[in-house]
Amino acid sequence: MKPARPADAPPGEQAAENAASARGTNPDRVRQRNLATVLRLVHRAQGSSRSELTQSTGLNRSTIAALVGELAEIGVVREAVPAASNRVGRPSPVVTADPRVVAIAVNPEIDAVTVGIVGLDGTVHRRIRRETDSVPSASEAAHLAAATIRDVLDELPGDVRATGIGVAVPGLVRRSDGVVRLAPHLGWIDEPFSEMLRAETGLVTRAANDARLGAVAESIFGSGRGVGTMVFLNGGASGVGGGVIVDGRPLGGVEGYAGELGHTLVNSSGVVCHCGAVGCLETEVGQAELLHALGRERGSDDDLDALLAGSDDPRVLAEVERQVGWLSVTLRTTVNVFNPQVIVLGGFLGALHGVAGDRIRALTTESALRGPGQDVSIVRAALGPRRLMIGAAELAFEELLADPSSLAAR
Amino acid sequence: MKPARPADAPPGEQAAENAASARGTNPDRVRQRNLATVLRLVHRAQGSSRSELTQSTGLNRSTIAALVGELAEIGVVREAVPAASNRVGRPSPVVTADPRVVAIAVNPEIDAVTVGIVGLDGTVHRRIRRETDSVPSASEAAHLAAATIRDVLDELPGDVRATGIGVAVPGLVRRSDGVVRLAPHLGWIDEPFSEMLRAETGLVTRAANDARLGAVAESIFGSGRGVGTMVFLNGGASGVGGGVIVDGRPLGGVEGYAGELGHTLVNSSGVVCHCGAVGCLETEVGQAELLHALGRERGSDDDLDALLAGSDDPRVLAEVERQVGWLSVTLRTTVNVFNPQVIVLGGFLGALHGVAGDRIRALTTESALRGPGQDVSIVRAALGPRRLMIGAAELAFEELLADPSSLAAR
Repeated sequence: MKPARPADAPPGEQAAENAASARGTNPDRVRQRNLATVLRLVHRAQGSSRSELTQSTGLNRSTIAALVGELAEIGVVREAVPAASNRVGRPSPVVTADPRVVAIAVNPEIDAVTVGIVGLDGTVHRRIRRETDSVPSASEAAHLAAATIRDVLDELPGDVRATGIGVAVPGLVRRSDGVVRLAPHLGWIDEPFSEMLRAETGLVTRAANDARLGAVAESIFGSGRGVGTMVFLNGGASGVGGGVIVDGRPLGGVEGYAGELGHTLVNSSGVVCHCGAVGCLETEVGQAELLHALGRERGSDDDLDALLAGSDDPRVLAEVERQVGWLSVTLRTTVNVFNPQVIVLGGFLGALHGVAGDRIRALTTESALRGPGQDVSIVRAALGPRRLMIGAAELAFEELLADPSSLAAR
Repeated sequence: MKPARPADAPPGEQAAENAASARGTNPDRVRQRNLATVLRLVHRAQGSSRSELTQSTGLNRSTIAALVGELAEIGVVREAVPAASNRVGRPSPVVTADPRVVAIAVNPEIDAVTVGIVGLDGTVHRRIRRETDSVPSASEAAHLAAATIRDVLDELPGDVRATGIGVAVPGLVRRSDGVVRLAPHLGWIDEPFSEMLRAETGLVTRAANDARLGAVAESIFGSGRGVGTMVFLNGGASGVGGGVIVDGRPLGGVEGYAGELGHTLVNSSGVVCHCGAVGCLETEVGQAELLHALGRERGSDDDLDALLAGSDDPRVLAEVERQVGWLSVTLRTTVNVFNPQVIVLGGFLGALHGVAGDRIRALTTESALRGPGQDVSIVRAALGPRRLMIGAAELAFEELLADPSSLAAR
């Protein structure tokens, strides 16, 4: 396996693309933009026929054929004619992501570092969770991740190309330089984690908030597929994270900190949150309190699901009702502020939805404004433990998806 | 004066442009896109030299010259060589919006209907406030606005072209059909106000929430100029509205209802809001309470400014401190959720900022998360009474700015 792009190459065109309104379009950019559009469609659809691509892009068939040919030459897509069917006429060739293009996903947690290999079609090929005895420091986590990455890459066939590393961080990550400003539960403050990992591996490394990447993953391959405005709220062992998708793209804000819905007020006479403010959602809902009501010390999301579904203990029902009540206060804010089409709940918030989805819906609709309250669907997340691997991989695919020829230029 | 576009023409390409990621780019679209880019730059900069346009767009000089020539032919820009200066070399011609292209702005309120004529360079040429004896119904407001528009248009020179009507509504407006879902203080529910106005005037009419349009105006010509992520909060006689700008564009949500920051929770043991929920920002801050503390019944924003600045009455200071405290709770949510570069305060919230800006800043920073709390500036709005006219006009310019040749095709 060879790295697809040296770590010291110039940054991609993603930023320029996002601020595109002031930039003109010249013929070179048209070709790049069309290549990117076709590759993004193939990526998101996990395979697309040439006729679907023609229809989606509004480009003519010969242009699509040429673009697909160029993408195949770069080595990012493959074409195959589907087996004969009963339909009349020649079937349109199906274009899929080349399985030899992968990204490396990394997720440091309080008790483990997880490394994954994810294909350009969103398939999670490997997922290795390396447990730690104590909460890892940034350099310990970088070291463990790098060693795991080396092992995994050695096992891959020689023609596999990794576009780089994407890191999902349980905390605030500054977009401009990838520094972890604050990961409260890891105890990391101003740690240049992506730079550490880049130095150890020699691979381009980018990092972002875990819930934001989770939102991206659910938006592309999960419960928010095809949805323009979506809000993702995830309940984990260490708190509540959020990510917002606007017009199909993640909401970042100035420095990538946007979407911290776990730190919106739900109880003005509540307790002080670790963030310093009073009555954040994180202070009122929690996985530990749910498990405690169930008489457990620890448990995975799957355990929680089964236990909640099987329980009619009044203490458990009361705890569910209490948490659902506070959750709906943040959902009211979310609905009034974002007018989303879909709110996706993951982790223990997804487990609450599993047993009290109707109640969450009712409380939210009755307290939100009538217009946006009628528009919203509240659903469970779909991707489970694969979510953060897929989301982190998207970071590492971002430059390739913005400029497919960046992979060819070496 | 002639309407620049019949009311029954097909809708513009704005929606398609926003969801552009799936669409390919063909040569026709390149030309349209570049024309739009140049016109948008000239519009936003209120005039731009050719060399500035070359630099901003990254296009070459001859392309810019051709695009400017085409826009001049369509009749949306003019070129002039500036008077000789002391600088060496020939000065670059300055491109400005053609003053003969205007939009009509309409703003129905509880005691008046205001109509304005706004040029493509953002100049408010006329602003006529027609007071009403009682709160106008939707059809009364449409009738009054239409009569005022007829009078104003008759006075304009024959070569002026109006692109259409933009309406700023103090309430929720459904984007898909322009229906006013709820304007609580006007008492309007499900009123097709833009359709009424279109029927009376024969002009293309579009409507949106007033605070959202205020955010657009401040973002283009006011305190948020050049800012990517900005949040606008406006305090008016009838409540608190909000509008959010993300990557330079207004946040709409599914149906255009997004940004209702006046209906975020600030006090969970507070009173019930007219919206039905408990403790919204609107229930705790208000222009009337400020005026009351000042011993007044009524007052404009300017009055409020002068009175607050000149008062050292303990009751007034206590009321300012009380309102600033609740305001900072919504600002904490705003900072954590959007990570904005700038928060712009207008109306009586701007007056509060005038006397307690440092206090608002301190309370917000100490309760918000450290990362986004350090990024944000909190400033006063700049445009005053012109704001809603400019914002509503932007709605009526939207199609022209997305496709300048739409004006030529008649």
